[in-house]
Amino acid sequence: MKAVVKVGGFAFPGRGEDLVSDYVKMFRERVGEDHILVVAGGGEIARLYIKAARKMGVPESLCDHIGILVSRLNARLLVDGLSEYAFPEIPVNIDELKHYFSSGKIVAMGGLTPGHSTNAVAAIAAETIDADLFINATDVEGVYTSDPSKDKTAQKLDEVSVGRLGEILSKVEISAGAYELMDPLALRIIQRSEIPTVILDGRSTSNVVKALQGGKVGTRLTHG
Amino acid sequence: MKAVVKVGGFAFPGRGEDLVSDYVKMFRERVGEDHILVVAGGGEIARLYIKAARKMGVPESLCDHIGILVSRLNARLLVDGLSEYAFPEIPVNIDELKHYFSSGKIVAMGGLTPGHSTNAVAAIAAETIDADLFINATDVEGVYTSDPSKDKTAQKLDEVSVGRLGEILSKVEISAGAYELMDPLALRIIQRSEIPTVILDGRSTSNVVKALQGGKVGTRLTHG
Amino acid sequence: MKAVVKVGGFAFPGRGEDLVSDYVKMFRERVGEDHILVVAGGGEIARLYIKAARKMGVPESLCDHIGILVSRLNARLLVDGLSEYAFPEIPVNIDELKHYFSSGKIVAMGGLTPGHSTNAVAAIAAETIDADLFINATDVEGVYTSDPSKDKTAQKLDEVSVGRLGEILSKVEISAGAYELMDPLALRIIQRSEIPTVILDGRSTSNVVKALQGGKVGTRLTHG
Amino acid sequence: MKAVVKVGGFAFPGRGEDLVSDYVKMFRERVGEDHILVVAGGGEIARLYIKAARKMGVPESLCDHIGILVSRLNARLLVDGLSEYAFPEIPVNIDELKHYFSSGKIVAMGGLTPGHSTNAVAAIAAETIDADLFINATDVEGVYTSDPSKDKTAQKLDEVSVGRLGEILSKVEISAGAYELMDPLALRIIQRSEIPTVILDGRSTSNVVKALQGGKVGTRLTHG
Amino acid sequence: MKAVVKVGGFAFPGRGEDLVSDYVKMFRERVGEDHILVVAGGGEIARLYIKAARKMGVPESLCDHIGILVSRLNARLLVDGLSEYAFPEIPVNIDELKHYFSSGKIVAMGGLTPGHSTNAVAAIAAETIDADLFINATDVEGVYTSDPSKDKTAQKLDEVSVGRLGEILSKVEISAGAYELMDPLALRIIQRSEIPTVILDGRSTSNVVKALQGGKVGTRLTHG
Amino acid sequence: MKAVVKVGGFAFPGRGEDLVSDYVKMFRERVGEDHILVVAGGGEIARLYIKAARKMGVPESLCDHIGILVSRLNARLLVDGLSEYAFPEIPVNIDELKHYFSSGKIVAMGGLTPGHSTNAVAAIAAETIDADLFINATDVEGVYTSDPSKDKTAQKLDEVSVGRLGEILSKVEISAGAYELMDPLALRIIQRSEIPTVILDGRSTSNVVKALQGGKVGTRLTHG
Repeated sequence: MKAVVKVGGFAFPGRGEDLVSDYVKMFRERVGEDHILVVAGGGEIARLYIKAARKMGVPESLCDHIGILVSRLNARLLVDGLSEYAFPEIPVNIDELKHYFSSGKIVAMGGLTPGHSTNAVAAIAAETIDADLFINATDVEGVYTSDPSKDKTAQKLDEVSVGRLGEILSKVEISAGAYELMDPLALRIIQRSEIPTVILDGRSTSNVVKALQGGKVGTRLTHG
Repeated sequence: MKAVVKVGGFAFPGRGEDLVSDYVKMFRERVGEDHILVVAGGGEIARLYIKAARKMGVPESLCDHIGILVSRLNARLLVDGLSEYAFPEIPVNIDELKHYFSSGKIVAMGGLTPGHSTNAVAAIAAETIDADLFINATDVEGVYTSDPSKDKTAQKLDEVSVGRLGEILSKVEISAGAYELMDPLALRIIQRSEIPTVILDGRSTSNVVKALQGGKVGTRLTHG
Repeated sequence: MKAVVKVGGFAFPGRGEDLVSDYVKMFRERVGEDHILVVAGGGEIARLYIKAARKMGVPESLCDHIGILVSRLNARLLVDGLSEYAFPEIPVNIDELKHYFSSGKIVAMGGLTPGHSTNAVAAIAAETIDADLFINATDVEGVYTSDPSKDKTAQKLDEVSVGRLGEILSKVEISAGAYELMDPLALRIIQRSEIPTVILDGRSTSNVVKALQGGKVGTRLTHG
Repeated sequence: MKAVVKVGGFAFPGRGEDLVSDYVKMFRERVGEDHILVVAGGGEIARLYIKAARKMGVPESLCDHIGILVSRLNARLLVDGLSEYAFPEIPVNIDELKHYFSSGKIVAMGGLTPGHSTNAVAAIAAETIDADLFINATDVEGVYTSDPSKDKTAQKLDEVSVGRLGEILSKVEISAGAYELMDPLALRIIQRSEIPTVILDGRSTSNVVKALQGGKVGTRLTHG
Repeated sequence: MKAVVKVGGFAFPGRGEDLVSDYVKMFRERVGEDHILVVAGGGEIARLYIKAARKMGVPESLCDHIGILVSRLNARLLVDGLSEYAFPEIPVNIDELKHYFSSGKIVAMGGLTPGHSTNAVAAIAAETIDADLFINATDVEGVYTSDPSKDKTAQKLDEVSVGRLGEILSKVEISAGAYELMDPLALRIIQRSEIPTVILDGRSTSNVVKALQGGKVGTRLTHG
Repeated sequence: MKAVVKVGGFAFPGRGEDLVSDYVKMFRERVGEDHILVVAGGGEIARLYIKAARKMGVPESLCDHIGILVSRLNARLLVDGLSEYAFPEIPVNIDELKHYFSSGKIVAMGGLTPGHSTNAVAAIAAETIDADLFINATDVEGVYTSDPSKDKTAQKLDEVSVGRLGEILSKVEISAGAYELMDPLALRIIQRSEIPTVILDGRSTSNVVKALQGGKVGTRLTHG
């Protein structure tokens, strides 16, 4: 099936040196089963550069932009690791995204434009290629009723409606490199095109495989 | 001063054949006073093409993309009309935006990426160039307490906080070509960088001039 | 067979909202039979924008350029409607034209350079890909002995030599958006490479199919 | 004044190794007086490559394209020789042409699109930048009543109407690398915008200087 | 097998008008056997332009750059001659190189960056695509113990270690268009990735075929 | 004066978060005195990504390429920090380098092509813009008679001929991210154009200022 997998920055250098090769291995193994478009997040290295930029008074949009460049660097690592299984160039706009994906190869990309997260990019990509599934591979186990790091009574949800997820996330502040789980724009895209979406724990690639195979894992978004 | 002016699609062919030359004339006259970056909306022609696309089952992101192409066509008309006062190329990403604006000439542009309105683009542009003012020239008189076309008791506001504007607009559905006044992303950008913003009636260019000259017109957004 | 089909602006929004989806449907159905490169004209929307530009004193070359942008917008609509049957990007030079066509997918494009019509572009494209047939789908029934809208005795020709067609068209004035049937450059290209060419009534896609199937329709150009 | 100077291929390597540095010297000396856009022709090297291409059965449009690449190589030599007086990049489309020329520096360019000569490119450039003068520097003394290499009674004309020039040139065959003086497209552009045009003997740069200074030299085209 | 063939400038117009079509014929015949990436040198025409540039005081890096443009022109001739067997665009960076080669078609390219020869480019290309063989087709019979044009006792070597070749070549001066056999950078790339490399007499394409078929010809580089 | 400053990767995030803002401050202060082109190295982050790539078996050229992307990220941080003093885009080829530098603004860039270090890029840049000085800001005090980290008797040199420096460095192995001081290609460029060059300790920006002001610092390369 056609799937968009958003792989959070935790799986890339600065934190996930080994995880990135796990992802490469897994994506290679899915060739023939799934046609995958990967969107890489920025992660630690993005935060490092953005911190340096902010200290010099760089505007938020340009901090976002630096984060985008790091996410593309992460995508480049995937492309190089995937070798002949990946399309060799990284799309930086919608036309290129469609062009490269039409090659039948795995496409890896990072962010597109300041102002929104790579989650939103992944949602737009899923809408554009009419994906059968959008997997958001994060470093938490799924969606909780509240922030589990602050609230001990927080419960993991197996399913959540897009609307309720929006409410849960509505308190998250917007600043470059600090988007969590899904930003509002990602949710609106998922909602308007009713994109089948799963948020799962991507610290182990087996969860992603499970979702690709139709298994129950993480939190599934419901529409309507 | 450095100003971003978002000119809605109503000022371009399909509806505003004469208005576009008014804007060109006005922008020429502001040279020396203000350094202006214009963001053009899509308008009637965008809606016409998007309607044709939707009838053929084109995904929403690609409908957005068609709208972006029309907004760039509108920007092109401004550039050609402004002649030597405008930078001859239209930026399609943040690097080009900064590059072209650094020439000291008027820059005109359209949309950037599917998923958000040209209002959000204008907010990102304002943040990027550290604009002194962001003018959203619309085809209504400003912000109302509710939709004035449906609610006779709706009152125009001279000032509104970004938070309250978000609430007023929160019922607006998201679909290509149908964004109104400010989409949520635009509001978040305005908020995070506290961009001085005015929403005004752009059907007469004199309102824009008034705002550029620091006069009271339309609805001013307040921060904090 | 390899065929270039020039689809006049009459088949696109502003006049041909329904016709464009007929063309999309027909091109999809020809996949497997023919490998098609479509060149879209500018049409009503081009004329609308060019009129606005001329009123502001924009030079003719730049008016041509605006017409080119509209023709690419029309091509975009075809590409989006054709979905996976079309190459996702629109060529803007000869290298891209060859590149995209070599994918085996349908390629849609608009104009290339100011100074000549999309008919000339279509002729150049036909020469470049060594097309078996160049179909010029217009909104008239074919070539007449004189302008049928002005001369009641004008007769439709089933065949005409390139030389004679040149004479018939020699009175047409050159101005952006006003090219008719074939401009002189298109004729010279057709002539120098003896490109098999048919001018037909494209207001019904069945005529195009007929020509692709080798049937007699419209006016066939003869060489030598 | 703003002037477009078309410098024929005779002034570039393969034939004009010394002439090219004369042109560079002369253009440097005109800085401050004139703002010049140079269009380079292809010349001997273009013919050499096109001959090799034709022998391999390459289509005419692609032969044209090879000629364009050589003309850009010639333009590159001018740019490098002009050093800080020239804009460092060579425009390959109308937007870049306007962008680079707006820098105030000398712009050098070659061909744009298959199907027409660099004379037509120069005419389009002159129209685009609203040039005060278009000088076509050729390797003949001007326009003759007929081909002076074949007809001993041929007389050089000091002035000629665009219409009559068209008639004189109408027998010239169109094939890549073989355009002479002015191709039909160049004439139509000159005519539609009444571009002040001089055809002169560019084997000595002093003729070009004379024309730039408003002197009588070569053949002046007349309108109306 | 995957092979990179560097074809020296001697095989292109200015000296090798016929040889280039031999190469085109040979490469067409190898389709199905080998997947070839060709790197074209600059040759006589490069030297001609560089000489003209040097006379005008153009810096060495820009002279290199002119040589690169000529090598791309030579690559273009190969691409056009190879027609549907070649990828229609010429890579100008590593991403494009991988992209175009992944199409399965023959890729032809020229230089990339000032400062090193097209031999180095070919070595980098061979490393990038993990080539099974790198053939350097020169206009000498292989590597000699010293310069055979100056030293009558020079002996052709059937094998030579990369280290010793470096010593033999160490006296060659570096200047645009004057690189011989292998520049130091090419040798370092060959060495670091132990690329199987043959230097042979490319004035006859049969030698290249022999090397592709695993035969003994020219001089083979040895590692370790 | 026109100066190229190569700033090693030690001055960028991963190691030099504070140093980068020192450089930004210093470059701003030199505006009006010097016209500077900065070439950023890759540093720790480059090494981190290259290590991850090597573990997945990525070819050396592509490891180099990843290093180039990181060096451009570092250049981006400089550009954003320098704000209106820097040209907003980062050159990726020689034409862009000249174009952006001709704006009169500070230009920051990273690597260009696999196979050689950013030192070589800086040398090529210095040659291209005809720089008055090339400063290589490293994290050692200058050139030593041997490797000071291994040889206690190593002595710092105030001057060294390019030839002797080549000998000192000749034992350095070539591998992505491991180039030291000057790679052989950089030396050859410096030599062929006799570029005035200083290697100094860039861990304090005051050394760079000293060199720009003509003071004695680090090791000066001598020619002839």
